[in-house]
Amino acid sequence: MSSSVLKPLGAAHIAAARDRLRHRAAKAGLDGLLLLRAPNIAYTSGLFLSANERPMGLWLPVAGEPVLFMPELERENAGDTGIADLRCYEEFPGTHHPVLWMLDEIGQCTIGIDALSAELLDVARDRMVRIDLTDHAMHERTIKTPEELVLIREAARFADSFLVRLHAEGGNIIGQGGTEQDLMADAMAHARGALFAKHGVAFAGTPMGITASVHSGPRAALPHGTVLPRQPLHRETVIAGIGASLGGYHAESGVTLIVGEISPKQRQIMQAMERCNDAAVAALAAGETCEKVDMAAADALRSAGLGAAIRHRIGHGMGLEGHEAPWLAPGDATRTLHNMVFSNEPGVYRPGIDGYRTINTMIFTKTGVDIPSRFQTNTPIDARVIAI
Amino acid sequence: MSSSVLKPLGAAHIAAARDRLRHRAAKAGLDGLLLLRAPNIAYTSGLFLSANERPMGLWLPVAGEPVLFMPELERENAGDTGIADLRCYEEFPGTHHPVLWMLDEIGQCTIGIDALSAELLDVARDRMVRIDLTDHAMHERTIKTPEELVLIREAARFADSFLVRLHAEGGNIIGQGGTEQDLMADAMAHARGALFAKHGVAFAGTPMGITASVHSGPRAALPHGTVLPRQPLHRETVIAGIGASLGGYHAESGVTLIVGEISPKQRQIMQAMERCNDAAVAALAAGETCEKVDMAAADALRSAGLGAAIRHRIGHGMGLEGHEAPWLAPGDATRTLHNMVFSNEPGVYRPGIDGYRTINTMIFTKTGVDIPSRFQTNTPIDARVIAI
Repeated sequence: MSSSVLKPLGAAHIAAARDRLRHRAAKAGLDGLLLLRAPNIAYTSGLFLSANERPMGLWLPVAGEPVLFMPELERENAGDTGIADLRCYEEFPGTHHPVLWMLDEIGQCTIGIDALSAELLDVARDRMVRIDLTDHAMHERTIKTPEELVLIREAARFADSFLVRLHAEGGNIIGQGGTEQDLMADAMAHARGALFAKHGVAFAGTPMGITASVHSGPRAALPHGTVLPRQPLHRETVIAGIGASLGGYHAESGVTLIVGEISPKQRQIMQAMERCNDAAVAALAAGETCEKVDMAAADALRSAGLGAAIRHRIGHGMGLEGHEAPWLAPGDATRTLHNMVFSNEPGVYRPGIDGYRTINTMIFTKTGVDIPSRFQTNTPIDARVIAI
Repeated sequence: MSSSVLKPLGAAHIAAARDRLRHRAAKAGLDGLLLLRAPNIAYTSGLFLSANERPMGLWLPVAGEPVLFMPELERENAGDTGIADLRCYEEFPGTHHPVLWMLDEIGQCTIGIDALSAELLDVARDRMVRIDLTDHAMHERTIKTPEELVLIREAARFADSFLVRLHAEGGNIIGQGGTEQDLMADAMAHARGALFAKHGVAFAGTPMGITASVHSGPRAALPHGTVLPRQPLHRETVIAGIGASLGGYHAESGVTLIVGEISPKQRQIMQAMERCNDAAVAALAAGETCEKVDMAAADALRSAGLGAAIRHRIGHGMGLEGHEAPWLAPGDATRTLHNMVFSNEPGVYRPGIDGYRTINTMIFTKTGVDIPSRFQTNTPIDARVIAI
């Protein structure tokens, strides 16, 4: 890994992504794609701009050069894309809706649009030969390139780094009366500091950071609760779910730790979750569809008598978005393909009692499933203790 | 102001909001409203949940009790709303799209939906008598209640607090080699600390915080640039735009400061911006439409020969969203009504040279325009200096 010389994805990578998308659009019988979703624009232009109410768009014709549509306000921010044809509208809302303005600039054709508000559909249809509302760019983005995978692998290291710190310093912090918030602040400073120290200069201007949640005790039964000024108690579970991003690419790592000492029941649940994790890996390695990977994972929890404690799917795609298609979930029959990236998040939630969740990042490769998040592998269940 | 006993908006306020919306839906000939946008759900339930790919919805029938639709994962997080009818779907994407599941639960009727993806429109139309895609809840939200205005006024104090600190400590920080990022970190810690010290306990679980940007020199000509490790130089402009939120309600304050000494040209621009600010206030006080308030403000800059330096509209609505309708901008003919809240953001941007922006929060009241952001009023142009 040449992580010491890592840089954001360059112009050649972005141009190749555009070419793959052109090919995909042509195969779908389209004249081109209008991309309105921020991650799709980032994918095809390298522009990471915060989405607000002012629409931005990238028009990618099957034959011809791309056009970037921006609010006048962002004109200079589009300077580095190498896309020569930049067209700006005055302001939002404007006398003419910016998306309809884009369609008028493009001209009547057969067009793919990745996302559109329903109230614009009828009037957009009037302007176009045919509108295909498939998110073709998202479909393309599900297959990561080697360069994208390098960024995802490196991001996973910093998600792990949060967990390593939490594991090492948690006991000290709790012993001094520290709370979930204190645990989070300490490990966050550590992981974020390490990420920016190593990559802050080379990746300036691209999305980079750590997101985290730390929950303890009965609170851990709420997968999406607020992190509180609550001190974890002896024998309680502490669940930490960490996301890290580098150059706009996301990875996750997460674990369940026990304060002080693991009880037999806790160990039993943690072992069942490990089997659940392994079942998802095995199903993915076998090339099962997305929903079947989820089913295999859920079956492992059900076999352990924990079916009632399942609160969510086993995982989601990730890349330019923290959560993105495809979904390892009921209802997603997507075929899994090499170089797709998924989270693997067994969760056992017992309302009023406690909660458990672990997270790995999985890369489906030709030779099996790679796990760039290493904390769980490096920390066997019996070592998942916050010593106090 | 009883700000010492401030609390998040309570159940009675939320129930009254639902009743106003029922009335609005009835007037529009609808059987009810399905609210899918997070701020609209917060407005009518008190639930501030982070939006992810799993849809949430609130069905508000004109006659009858509301229904909250949630992913199973969030069940407990809906516990405090007092809405008895909570219905959960298993997972996203699921075999049935969650929004279509909501429509099936509601049953065929004449429905208002605040936001819908275009790819669901045709199939949704098949299920309903008629779909009205007006965002009725947003229309209602434009008129703030006295209780909402208390939160907005209080939030504005903490946006000001950032600027007071920047003004007081900026010279010291720059004198030690400090950068835009250092200025921001110092003032952010100050304002955020003050906000949480005063309101952290009472407002736990509701959105609360400070957002800020600090740009200097030629960078200040980019309204939405990244905050950099760049040291502001003598005589350069430093523009700071601050948002503060309390109990989910937003306010803004912002100013342009000069490092060291104001040049005659800088003073001239700052005076023109003040006239622009005052023109917007006067037009709003006179009850002009939104777009005419924007025109009046832009005219003030044009009269000063600064028309070419305009990069954006004069302002936007704010409340549960930092930017929300209506817009003081070209193309928004909305009639201004009492208790609407707007930003007032004169901006002069000279690419390659410098940039200027000031921000006030304006509340349109029966007796005129109230300005809860006080920094500009308390700091005349000649005092807007970072002394080094």
